[in-house]
Amino acid sequence: RTLRIGLIPGDGIGKEVIPAGRRVLEALPAYLKLKFEFVDLKAGFEAFEQTGAALPEKTVDILKAECDGALFGAVSSPTQAVKGYSSPIVALRKKLDLYANVRPVKSVMTAVKPIDMVIVRENTEDLYVKEEKTYSGPDGKVAEAIKRISERASFRIATMAGDIAVRRQRLREDGASSIHKSPLVTVTHKSNVLSQTDGLFRAASKSALSAARFNGVTVEEQIVDSMVYKLFRQPEDYDVIVAPNLYGDILSDGAAALVGSLGLVPSANVGEGFAIGEPCHGSAPDIMGKGIANPIATLRSVALMLEFLEEPAAAAKIYAAVDANLEAGVLVTPDLGGTATTEQVVEDILNKL
Amino acid sequence: RTLRIGLIPGDGIGKEVIPAGRRVLEALPAYLKLKFEFVDLKAGFEAFEQTGAALPEKTVDILKAECDGALFGAVSSPTQAVKGYSSPIVALRKKLDLYANVRPVKSVMTAVKPIDMVIVRENTEDLYVKEEKTYSGPDGKVAEAIKRISERASFRIATMAGDIAVRRQRLREDGASSIHKSPLVTVTHKSNVLSQTDGLFRAASKSALSAARFNGVTVEEQIVDSMVYKLFRQPEDYDVIVAPNLYGDILSDGAAALVGSLGLVPSANVGEGFAIGEPCHGSAPDIMGKGIANPIATLRSVALMLEFLEEPAAAAKIYAAVDANLEAGVLVTPDLGGTATTEQVVEDILNKL
Ligand SMILES: CC(C)[C@H](C(=O)O)[C@@H](O)C(=O)O
Ligand SMILES: CC(C)[C@H](C(=O)O)[C@@H](O)C(=O)O
Repeated sequence: RTLRIGLIPGDGIGKEVIPAGRRVLEALPAYLKLKFEFVDLKAGFEAFEQTGAALPEKTVDILKAECDGALFGAVSSPTQAVKGYSSPIVALRKKLDLYANVRPVKSVMTAVKPIDMVIVRENTEDLYVKEEKTYSGPDGKVAEAIKRISERASFRIATMAGDIAVRRQRLREDGASSIHKSPLVTVTHKSNVLSQTDGLFRAASKSALSAARFNGVTVEEQIVDSMVYKLFRQPEDYDVIVAPNLYGDILSDGAAALVGSLGLVPSANVGEGFAIGEPCHGSAPDIMGKGIANPIATLRSVALMLEFLEEPAAAAKIYAAVDANLEAGVLVTPDLGGTATTEQVVEDILNKL
Repeated sequence: RTLRIGLIPGDGIGKEVIPAGRRVLEALPAYLKLKFEFVDLKAGFEAFEQTGAALPEKTVDILKAECDGALFGAVSSPTQAVKGYSSPIVALRKKLDLYANVRPVKSVMTAVKPIDMVIVRENTEDLYVKEEKTYSGPDGKVAEAIKRISERASFRIATMAGDIAVRRQRLREDGASSIHKSPLVTVTHKSNVLSQTDGLFRAASKSALSAARFNGVTVEEQIVDSMVYKLFRQPEDYDVIVAPNLYGDILSDGAAALVGSLGLVPSANVGEGFAIGEPCHGSAPDIMGKGIANPIATLRSVALMLEFLEEPAAAAKIYAAVDANLEAGVLVTPDLGGTATTEQVVEDILNKL
């Protein structure tokens, strides 16, 4: 099988880690019978400055017409509001209907407590519909934004969370090491305040998770503020967490903090038959150009993309090589307390493939 | 001076901790020249079941007409949506225009890292305006909520954050122990996605904090997801954090997790010349009636209320007695790993007053 992958490095260290993602795909062992073709695509603040568009139409068109998946690096947000600029990753998720953002957070080293969870974030609606207006009130300006929650999107994201919980359980039964014994999905919302919007998310999620194939999955719920509290206090309790877009965004970063560095945490933006791998870190202007960005979040994002493109064996190879590098703990980048360069870490992981 | 205080125990352990709050006020040393009168008031789920109103009008009327301040315990949220029920504390904040929710989070024991921050949460708008509607879309139900941000409320909450930063700095200069050397206000928002609403919060906050009296205060900003990440990784860096309502809600619980137990963290809902002290924990049905609820969040909330009622000396007395109890570490409730009852902890703290 040949997979055509769009490469969207974006800004800052995106340009340093996405090439590492490409190399690991090219280095996959031959017996997996996978070939890759790559297309270089633009997006980000630099693209905005050059072309006037943070997400050029060409990028979207080529992804839709030609690609099976993609890797997205990171983009710089301007520090001041810039007219006409808005985040290309948010637009991309919407334009390709990549309705789920999936972030596995698993501790290997550095963690005080073992953690093994996946955050499944709805990716297309909530406050991210970006429908805003500003008007003059009696005491100055007033701005309003719409938070939109649909039954359909909530049902579909909870279904994906349930499927991920079942798949993880199957892997455990096949011998994958895990701190969990049985599958759990935690539905996060704030329906004590937002009875209609978050109430709908809650009801649609519960309805999706009551499907017969989720019989063995325990379903719980947490109010988002209490979820953040529990995430810090008892992270080991959680298996799969499903949340509307904004809470999912916040919980993902919170969970990432638990495993020591954003440089370790991957994500995938997933739709029907398409996935974009995306490291959780940003463009990190402070370390850009120094060659010391941690490539692991990207390499894991490559593996996660492969999982959603139905290539679990290739994904497993990459995860294992990354875990071996981390367990050895020698060739690690400065964010993990090491002194290795991006290049050295990538070489080490390629050798372990 | 005589202060008239409304007592609103609410549900669950609210009924066990609010009486402790009353006792500590009654036990304040005579040289402070403070007298207290108390009015018992209803609110909460039990009140809803008895009277049909979670926040009876009488409660609001008496608070407005007669009281200088109040103590609010906790309320139980029904586990299923109940027609006509909505959170009384949210309504109370709005009806009394208690525009700020102030949560100091300070580590005394149990903390790995020393923490000393105050979260200043806007308390009247954002998604808490609760303007929601539901309609039928092409694929099922769709619900929308309004997130409203005004220049006025943003300016006023940032001004309070600046004033708190200045006051804390003055206390440090007067010898209060602290991990901070200079005042810092961190403005939290998500203006990279919500350019108008959170953009307005950001702009109005910065404008408020550029007032001449805040010259010595450093002003920074953090995107909310990154703020949660930093809160977990570098909590010691933060002094005063100001945020719109919902982010403030989430950050407050996150910060509480850092100091070991929600049972330690106080809050105050503050308006012009009025303050309601409110422990951060909920009604805790699991331990209700056992007499083991931690009273410290309430006692600190009493002190915080007194601060905002311009009685800093009385507040300092209570803080010191609580800290002495925690530093001794003997008479502490089960949430902190001890075996003491609520009664024993209260007695110990009264003795230390
Ligand atoms: C850059 C920003 C718009 C984005 C988001 O909020 O989704 C980021 O935080 C993420 O999680 O990918
Ligand atoms: C009970 C709930 C409505 C409330 C809120 O969200 O404000 C609580 O979480 C709080 O922080 O006081």
